[in-house]
Formats: sequence, structure tokens, C-alpha cells
Amino acid sequence: MSFELTILGSNSAAPAHSRHQSAQVLRLENLIFLIDCGEGTQMQISRYRVKISRLKHIFISHLHGDHYLGLVGLLSTLNLRNRKEDLFVFGPSGLDDIITMHLKYTETVLGYKVHFTVLDPENPEIIVDNDLLVVSTIPMDHRIPCTGFLFKEKPRKYRLKKGNDLSKLSFDEINTLKSGVPVQRDNQVKYSLEDYTLPPLKPRAYAYCSDTRYNESIIPYIESVDLLYHESTFLSDQEERAFETFHSSARQAANIALKANVSKLILGHFSIRYKNLEPLLSEAREVFANSYLAIEGQKINIELDNYGQEA
Amino acid sequence: MSFELTILGSNSAAPAHSRHQSAQVLRLENLIFLIDCGEGTQMQISRYRVKISRLKHIFISHLHGDHYLGLVGLLSTLNLRNRKEDLFVFGPSGLDDIITMHLKYTETVLGYKVHFTVLDPENPEIIVDNDLLVVSTIPMDHRIPCTGFLFKEKPRKYRLKKGNDLSKLSFDEINTLKSGVPVQRDNQVKYSLEDYTLPPLKPRAYAYCSDTRYNESIIPYIESVDLLYHESTFLSDQEERAFETFHSSARQAANIALKANVSKLILGHFSIRYKNLEPLLSEAREVFANSYLAIEGQKINIELDNYGQEA
Repeated sequence: MSFELTILGSNSAAPAHSRHQSAQVLRLENLIFLIDCGEGTQMQISRYRVKISRLKHIFISHLHGDHYLGLVGLLSTLNLRNRKEDLFVFGPSGLDDIITMHLKYTETVLGYKVHFTVLDPENPEIIVDNDLLVVSTIPMDHRIPCTGFLFKEKPRKYRLKKGNDLSKLSFDEINTLKSGVPVQRDNQVKYSLEDYTLPPLKPRAYAYCSDTRYNESIIPYIESVDLLYHESTFLSDQEERAFETFHSSARQAANIALKANVSKLILGHFSIRYKNLEPLLSEAREVFANSYLAIEGQKINIELDNYGQEA
Repeated sequence: MSFELTILGSNSAAPAHSRHQSAQVLRLENLIFLIDCGEGTQMQISRYRVKISRLKHIFISHLHGDHYLGLVGLLSTLNLRNRKEDLFVFGPSGLDDIITMHLKYTETVLGYKVHFTVLDPENPEIIVDNDLLVVSTIPMDHRIPCTGFLFKEKPRKYRLKKGNDLSKLSFDEINTLKSGVPVQRDNQVKYSLEDYTLPPLKPRAYAYCSDTRYNESIIPYIESVDLLYHESTFLSDQEERAFETFHSSARQAANIALKANVSKLILGHFSIRYKNLEPLLSEAREVFANSYLAIEGQKINIELDNYGQEA
């Protein structure tokens, strides 16, 4: 089952050095989640052949233009493509006013329904909960209200070990084992978890943290995620400026990754001032080796972790 | 003196086939005029190295997203680049509300002043009048209020013929000749226009007509312009659909060019349905031979016409 992140935009503030503004797509099975939507996101979606018909949820972190100015154009293009399915948009208070005003002046009546959820920037909350995953918010430390997003797969079932004769087990008993409970008959354990199952695969998790100052209060929310995207607008020699502008350095992003014990860090939201991004990567890797730059068009797969055992 | 149009976007409705939404830049000497501003215009400006610091006037024809959704991002990027000079924006009623709402929610205070002029979509008016040119509006026939724009150079002075001895003329007398009046002394014509001058070079004119149905009422405004951009969303087999959606076919655009006796026609605002644009060009050229497709990145120079005489 795929759990794959595609970077559509990696720059902060304005497009520059062939880099676009913040936008990412997370794909989980047949579902597409769009995270932030800077200007030109619909072109990037088309360039990288994202299957937009599968898009059902859009998450906007905050109302700085580089994170949302592509949204109205995208909604309009979905409409032109004759979309009929409901769309779920999550964003800060005010985004609904902005969308409504554009629709009013362009005299557009969308052929599909947009369900808009206003995010609470102070208190983390679960905003999506379906068969596949749970999406919750992470309060960011930014100049204006801003939330990060945690995407976490639902817990999986126990796996049946190969090589056992299961023909004597009923359908219900097999489901009992899969749910992590040994099968008892006549008050005795007849089929133990140890003999008959492998523990479930670990649910994968991705955390998107942009934009934010260095702030350790986010660590409990992102602890041990497989993949963390943390903004790294500046190099560490600009940490004073980062603080003033409510942003982070690459080193600070790496420190968060280290302290939160994540598996992999993606750096992004790069300042226009950096054409060459290698220094940001180097500085992050000094702190947290498994750091990478967000490269547009790049797909990052999170593999299922077998807990060291064959399935 | 340059009078040069650069096509930044040529597509209608949504970006497709590597074509962007409506945006053009007209350069006259050191002045840059931006005409419409679809999503991604700031990227196109950067790609085609338009000297954005010279931009002083932006004209928005109407409030369909493909003509204005790049504006707020552009204003924001000009601000990031530390612009201080006033900017003059002309557009339909409502565009000011949209800009104001975005600035409010993004908590942005621009470091430069935006002078916004609401256009009257019914009555043509002069909206810019400076040393170099006059810009006036042309009422379009579209589903929502929409104006075209006519850019016309100011009349030039008479040119002094070479080879004459002008040493006996005073400064005032030379200016008299240049203004098209013969110099008289003792109630006699001493220096005739015929002997001493060539007529002024013809003021160049460019008309932007998008979006609009086929409507001959625009002809008086665009009569004899050097260059006409007329939308041609469809092929002529879709003229019924063009009428319903308040657009034109390439053949209709060519008919307007012919009837208005313009020198050159640029077709644009192409429907997503056409990947290959050659059929639109062919059909226009059957009616008006000097027709061309709007190609992004293309620069179209309007040369000064010497009226067949050497300067």
C-alpha cells in the first residue's frame, strides 16, 4: 500500500530559482491529499501528473500568499473538469471568505460541493478520520495563525504466519487472531498469537510543519514519525532573522527531527536568498544525518516497516 | 523607440498544453504595461525576463479567474522586492475588494501605494494620458463586465528634412516647423512644410480585445490599429458555443481585423480543447492573411511607419 509524498513547491515567499511556492501531495492508496496550495500549484499538479480526480481533501496551513494563492484557480479548474464529488477544504478562518468573494465576483457556481472546515490554530484536533488514516492538526508558532498537519495510518491487523494449518479455524476465529487476541476453546488457548501471527505492520506517519519558528512544543505531536517536513527558510547564521520572521533554520529543523526521533527529515520552504541549497542540507545533516532537501517533482515513499520480520 | 508586445499567457479558462492563462506585457520606451494577470504571471514575467521594476500600470479586463488570479501574488512579490513606487491598477468593480481582502487576511501592508481605478464597462474612457501614450477602454461583449484596452502613442512632431540650411532659423521657428506650421516672415511663407519637413511618423496603436463575443460595435475603437489581439477561443464550427459562452472563433476575430482594417492580428485565449493551434490560424488567414498565433515568450515589435519616406 503506497504512502507517497510528492513535492510540488519548495520555496518561500515568492517563486525563484525555478522553485515554486509551498504545495505537496500525499498519496495513500487511491486517495490524494493536497497540503498547501501556492500560486501555480495546478500547473505543478499537471506537470507531475498527479491524478487530481482522486483529490478529496485540501489542507491550507495559513493565509500567507505563498501557501494558498493557487487554491481559487484550482477549485475553478476542478469545476471546468466537471468535478461532481464533494471536496473537503481545511484552513484558517478567513479562507472561506476569500473563496466566497472570488466565486461571487467571477459569478461562478461550482458544480460540486465544498465543505469548508475552519481550523483552530491553538488546539490540536482530529480533522479527518476514515478507514485508512487520521489527520490531525499541530499548532505552529508563526506570525499569523498557522497549523501543521499529521497524517497517520490507522492501526493494522495482526498478520497470519505462513506454514500453519488454519483449516480447522472458523472465519470468526481467524478474525480474532487478526485483531490480536488468541483463540480459546474449552477455556484453553488453542491458537496463540506467538505461534500463529506476526505483529501488525507499524502505521506510517507523515508530519508537515510549515511555517514555524523553532519550537519544541511540537515534538510530542510528531514523535517518531516516519517522515517529517519541517520548514527551513534560513541557514543558522540567520537564526535571529528566523526568530523575528517566525521561521526556522535548517539546523533548527534538524534539531527538532533529532529530538522527536523521526526517521527522515525533509527540508523546505527555502528563502529566495539561497540559489544553492547544499549549505542548508549540510548544516542539517551535521545534526540529523537522515536529512534531505525538498526537490520539486520528487516522490518520497514511506515503506511499510516489517519490524524486522518477514510477512 | 520600442513598442513591443510580449505574450505571457495565451490560454483560456485553465492552463493546458504548456500554455498559461491571459497575460501580456506592452513595452513602450522604458515603461512596462501589464495587460491581464492570470495565475502564474509572475513566473512568466521571470521566465521571459520582463523588467518588472519598470512596471507602473496594470490593466485587468474582467473578473474571470484566468485573467486576474495572478494579481495578488504579483503585488506581494513586488512588495518583497522592496518596491516603493506607486502602482496604478485598472480593473472592474470588485477587484479592489478582492485585493483588500487578501491584504487583510495575510496581514500585509504594502510598502508602495496602489492607485486603483474602477473601469466603466459600458462607456469608453481615457484612463492613462502621459507624454508617451493614451490608454483608453473598449467595451467588450462578455458574460460579465469586461473592457478591452487601446494603447495609442501620442502624435509626433514633423521631422526636419535633411540637406536644408537651417542656420538662419531661430529656435522658435524650428519648433514652429516641427509643430506642422510653415514659418512666415513679412507675411510671406519663407519656409514651407513641403520644402523643409517630412510629415510626422504615424503614432502606433495596439488594441487588446479579450474576452468578447463577435461584435462589430468595437470596430470604430480599433480602426486601423497596427496590432490587434482579439480572442479566438474556438474554431468556427463552434460558433454557436462561442455565442453562448460570450467568446469568438478565430474566423470571427479575423473578420473583425479585416473590417477594422488593422495591420496585424494576433489570435489568443485558446480553448483547452485545442492542443494543436494550426487550424485556428488557417481559418483566420483565410479571412485575414496577416494573422498570427499568440505564442508565449514571443515578442512582437511594432515598427515605426515612415509613410514610405526616408527620415
